[in-house]
Amino acid sequence: MAEEGFRLDPWGHIEIKDYDRLYKVFGIRPFSEVLPLLKRAGMEPSHLIARGIIFGHRDFDKVLEAKIRGEPVAVLTGFMPSGKFHFGHKMVVDQLVYLQRHGFKVHVVIADAEAYIVRRIPREEAVRIAVEEYIANMIALGLDPKDTVFYFQTNRGTAYYRLIQLFAGKVTAAEMEAIYGDVSPAKMMAALTQAADILHVQLDEYGGYRWVVVPVGADQDPHLRLTRDIADRMKGVVELERPASTYHKLQPGLDGKKMSSSRPDSTIFLTDPPGEARRKLFKALTGGRATAEEQRKLGGVPEVCTVYHMDLYHLMPSEEEVGRVYRDCKSGRLLCGECKLLAWSKLERFLEDHRRKLEKAKDIAWRVVEAPRF
Amino acid sequence: MAEEGFRLDPWGHIEIKDYDRLYKVFGIRPFSEVLPLLKRAGMEPSHLIARGIIFGHRDFDKVLEAKIRGEPVAVLTGFMPSGKFHFGHKMVVDQLVYLQRHGFKVHVVIADAEAYIVRRIPREEAVRIAVEEYIANMIALGLDPKDTVFYFQTNRGTAYYRLIQLFAGKVTAAEMEAIYGDVSPAKMMAALTQAADILHVQLDEYGGYRWVVVPVGADQDPHLRLTRDIADRMKGVVELERPASTYHKLQPGLDGKKMSSSRPDSTIFLTDPPGEARRKLFKALTGGRATAEEQRKLGGVPEVCTVYHMDLYHLMPSEEEVGRVYRDCKSGRLLCGECKLLAWSKLERFLEDHRRKLEKAKDIAWRVVEAPRF
Repeated sequence: MAEEGFRLDPWGHIEIKDYDRLYKVFGIRPFSEVLPLLKRAGMEPSHLIARGIIFGHRDFDKVLEAKIRGEPVAVLTGFMPSGKFHFGHKMVVDQLVYLQRHGFKVHVVIADAEAYIVRRIPREEAVRIAVEEYIANMIALGLDPKDTVFYFQTNRGTAYYRLIQLFAGKVTAAEMEAIYGDVSPAKMMAALTQAADILHVQLDEYGGYRWVVVPVGADQDPHLRLTRDIADRMKGVVELERPASTYHKLQPGLDGKKMSSSRPDSTIFLTDPPGEARRKLFKALTGGRATAEEQRKLGGVPEVCTVYHMDLYHLMPSEEEVGRVYRDCKSGRLLCGECKLLAWSKLERFLEDHRRKLEKAKDIAWRVVEAPRF
Repeated sequence: MAEEGFRLDPWGHIEIKDYDRLYKVFGIRPFSEVLPLLKRAGMEPSHLIARGIIFGHRDFDKVLEAKIRGEPVAVLTGFMPSGKFHFGHKMVVDQLVYLQRHGFKVHVVIADAEAYIVRRIPREEAVRIAVEEYIANMIALGLDPKDTVFYFQTNRGTAYYRLIQLFAGKVTAAEMEAIYGDVSPAKMMAALTQAADILHVQLDEYGGYRWVVVPVGADQDPHLRLTRDIADRMKGVVELERPASTYHKLQPGLDGKKMSSSRPDSTIFLTDPPGEARRKLFKALTGGRATAEEQRKLGGVPEVCTVYHMDLYHLMPSEEEVGRVYRDCKSGRLLCGECKLLAWSKLERFLEDHRRKLEKAKDIAWRVVEAPRF
């Protein structure tokens, strides 16, 4: 190992199972190959890119080439309006803000149709959550609402719905079952609607953005592949480019499992009161050893430490600072208690600052989106 | 038998299999029970009603009661834009014209989404057929375009599509399979779109017609039942009344089988040249006996005669005239050759008159509907 373990290896600290499968079987490409194009497009890599959190892509080179040629480019993401906005969501918003600052038009889909038909979330509740939790937090995180299209799936207009209808003729029940595990009308509609979300911004009615990238976790790739196939199959009816995508590693939950609103201690919500946030952070799973003595001798394991991942994803944008934490943990110089205090000092400041921004953002949020009537 | 066979029995001359099943199992009601309400609503029965061709209904009494109270009422039908307009289509249009003249707002759905996703009919072809074949013929048959909403499924606006999305959460794959025989996304979308066609006119956006009747053949009842169930299940989301329906006996094809564009000799198209129409009529299946002598002795069987059905459905609105043909056939006084000549004299005049009206109607047809862009 020697020095090897101390380098900030962009592919090292966060484990992804089955890279080979992703690359060889599914054809996702390493993100590193587009770094030269990123530079040519005048885009300094964000910390998520520099750290290899964004590790793969499909056709993002084409989007960057279009951008270099001066053509309009866009990024699209969606969320289901349920639960509260947490640090897992923040990571995606950070990507949006990064791309927006480099000239990408941002589209944010509020998946209220899906929320309603799949999860039975009452409409008024879905609208409130969408606006006050998601959109407000996004704006507070720096997304410029003047350059963002926020829309509800149930309020997007005729041409968008026409796509959903036409897509229905382009997929089979067997494909649906393979990807979604069932063939219920609800799932089928949600899948076709998602494909329309990704593809409709290419229509003139919605700005004619031919070059669209969708940032997702690798687990979302089957949806992207279906959407790419649908785009191909629409030839002769509506000409649609295949969407590009980037793939990011999911931040692990504070309990070491998947981050999820349904296990509130697995994540920190951006509206958690300071005491609550502190409590969650201090009981988070670390890569510490059984005793302080042992840890001083062997060093910690930041690769499995959920606090280190908070630093890496959110709290320490400086390479130098996060590199120091990584090295000092590995060497045994930095023990978990002290490391948590360090993270908390960053987190506390962030949350306080965010709370202030969020209050203003809520008013703005209600103004930037038109809620559907039913 | 005696005089019995000579009466114009509204339930007699056209055979429907399984009345009992329709009435007892499925709860379709005999149309005769609404005749008093029809009278109270100021509506003289049309020949299709008087002759029992319209034989059943669901909730049409509620529509008539609403009309008597002075509330707006509507009728809705749809067609797939494929093939040519024939006498099977004309029967439904005659119902629309009758209801329109009695104050019903008419809605005509052009099922272009269905045509595209289920039958792969190219869009431009579907639009041309919809306008020049269907809408033009409807107008030529007396439908007043000023009081008719013609619309394409792919161009109907947000609230309509929202219904389709929401309906997806209200039906199961098992229901779809039971009714449509498969669970392909194409069929599901077609089914949900059809439910939205029937129900969306109740929304304020589309005129707020709460009382809607859909005239269909009995074979279409499963679709109606599904739509009624969906209306019930939307309670608390959107308040929708169950649609009413009327049921008509399908006119038999000239070959005695089901009338269909795909067997051009089974029906007469309203644009058939006179020679062609005459040829089809004269080779049509009748209820004649093996020899003229036998027929003079035993009488003919108008119940199975496809020419008699042309008289009954289309050519002889006068009860006296069609009654005379029926009786003279049964008694053996009227033989098939003479009877066909009589029908042809009516048909020839109708087609000539219709051709003239159709030319004017085509120009109007292109103006009354907005065709979708793709």
